[in-house]
Amino acid sequence: MARRRQLYEGKAKVIFEGPEPGTLVCYFKDDATAFNNQKKGTITGKGVLNNRISEFLMLRLQDLGIPTHFLRRLNMREQLVREVEIIPVEVIVRNVAAGSMAKRLGIPEGTPLPRSIVEYCYKSDELGDPLISEEHITAFGWASPQDIDDFLAMSLRVNDFLSGIFLGIGIKLVDFKLEFGRIYDENGDVRIVLADELSPDNMRLWDVNTGEKMDKDRFRRDMGNVEEAYREVARRLGVLPEGANVEAIDGESN
Amino acid sequence: MARRRQLYEGKAKVIFEGPEPGTLVCYFKDDATAFNNQKKGTITGKGVLNNRISEFLMLRLQDLGIPTHFLRRLNMREQLVREVEIIPVEVIVRNVAAGSMAKRLGIPEGTPLPRSIVEYCYKSDELGDPLISEEHITAFGWASPQDIDDFLAMSLRVNDFLSGIFLGIGIKLVDFKLEFGRIYDENGDVRIVLADELSPDNMRLWDVNTGEKMDKDRFRRDMGNVEEAYREVARRLGVLPEGANVEAIDGESN
Ligand SMILES: Nc1ncnc2c1ncn2[C@@H]1O[C@H](COP(=O)(O)OP(=O)(O)OP(=O)(O)O)[C@@H](O)[C@H]1O
Ligand SMILES: Nc1ncnc2c1ncn2[C@@H]1O[C@H](COP(=O)(O)OP(=O)(O)OP(=O)(O)O)[C@@H](O)[C@H]1O
Ligand SMILES: [Mg+2]
Ligand SMILES: [Mg+2]
Repeated sequence: MARRRQLYEGKAKVIFEGPEPGTLVCYFKDDATAFNNQKKGTITGKGVLNNRISEFLMLRLQDLGIPTHFLRRLNMREQLVREVEIIPVEVIVRNVAAGSMAKRLGIPEGTPLPRSIVEYCYKSDELGDPLISEEHITAFGWASPQDIDDFLAMSLRVNDFLSGIFLGIGIKLVDFKLEFGRIYDENGDVRIVLADELSPDNMRLWDVNTGEKMDKDRFRRDMGNVEEAYREVARRLGVLPEGANVEAIDGESN
Repeated sequence: MARRRQLYEGKAKVIFEGPEPGTLVCYFKDDATAFNNQKKGTITGKGVLNNRISEFLMLRLQDLGIPTHFLRRLNMREQLVREVEIIPVEVIVRNVAAGSMAKRLGIPEGTPLPRSIVEYCYKSDELGDPLISEEHITAFGWASPQDIDDFLAMSLRVNDFLSGIFLGIGIKLVDFKLEFGRIYDENGDVRIVLADELSPDNMRLWDVNTGEKMDKDRFRRDMGNVEEAYREVARRLGVLPEGANVEAIDGESN
């Protein structure tokens, strides 16, 4: 297969031009970063697993009627998606206090929240993805009030659904981050769709029985067994590649 | 006059029991703090000036129909106010990027904002008054959606009015912080009123012609002429005490 033109290399994925206009190929790397790029490392096999996990969850959300950028998985490390105009706002949904919110508001990590809380951050690596509110989003024109209504409604549906899926496999969905993008159709109409990825890189997942962390916090906090945690999530979701010695699998094979 | 029972000593004021139930006496100190109490100092005469400035602005806002805690000034450093239940949310209104917002969002200080932006912070010295959004306020029950509507409407009216007052005396109102409180009346009804103080301690004020700062940033940033700046604001507002050698004036005199 002829190598495609690379458009962008991010911290976890490389984005290539897709085979047709309006499409992109996302290549999932094993690279891991934390604390706004200050900590760097590799989680062997992560790209393969996140590609599968994200495929599975995006498809299930589409079944539910939530529009996503996902078209189809191409191979072990790549998926075809619709190109979108990424909205520079990260949407975080939280069910349990953890990470930055626990610290900012002085709430012990693990405290269940009185209700799910949606937070917004401005997507800017230089600024460290600062927390923002709807006021900033609309004043600076990052998204319209209508877009925000769309994010909020979709994010809460995604939360309900993912909470259910994970609970069914003994995992508590503590929090997660979503990215949304705009697609302009032939008539110039705009649609907001879920983009980027849904994986343990962007979620906190705690085993319901043991409380064990099954997500990128194992990497952030040097807890060990990082590969094993990602693999276990994929296994429980039923998307672990057949008899996979994930380490041995390269990007172009299927 | 018999000394009143002290209820609370804050960074800028001391709060005493008032002469009647449901009232308090605020004593305005010369103490100044910045960066969440890491920097401490004295601005000679500040208490006298802020007492006058806050009196003047609260009265003008009341004329406009905005309910406040203010009852009357008692003497050079004290004012009588209604006791309220302080809502633990600071409301910040910004017209020009400055201070923490300029830094967080990477906007050069002095950039006019596309429209006025209202921010909320959780009032907690230990946590450094972290920025929050309406989601946090309602989820944790710090205020109701109706309360937030009230803050927002009042804050924008205060902004319009204060912007006008200050523009009339050659000063740009860059930003300011408000505190609101609840008053429960006999029937158990609740009203939200503007509380605390309105002074150069809680505002950014820039001279329209020279751009010179006339507020607490002169203290925060060691710019000198701090007393002079507060005095000049009071003078332009027409509330500088008669022939005042402010330094010599003590709390109990009138
Ligand atoms: N469908 C899409 N169309 C266009 N861009 C997309 C799409 N899905 C995801 N992206 C963007 O591609 C990049 C994915 O790469 P990666 O996740 O490695 O980025 P990152 O290191 O997290 O960088 P960033 O800080 O830009 O998100 C992100 O910038 C993401 O917003
Ligand atoms: N009408 C009122 N009734 C009750 N409390 C009030 C009223 N007006 C102001 N306060 C509170 O009194 C205190 C005023 O003191 P000061 O401004 O010195 O406090 P501070 O050092 O800023 O401390 P804090 O961090 O508590 O605001 C503040 O806590 C303020 O919220
Ligand atoms: Mg990313
Ligand atoms: Mg105060």
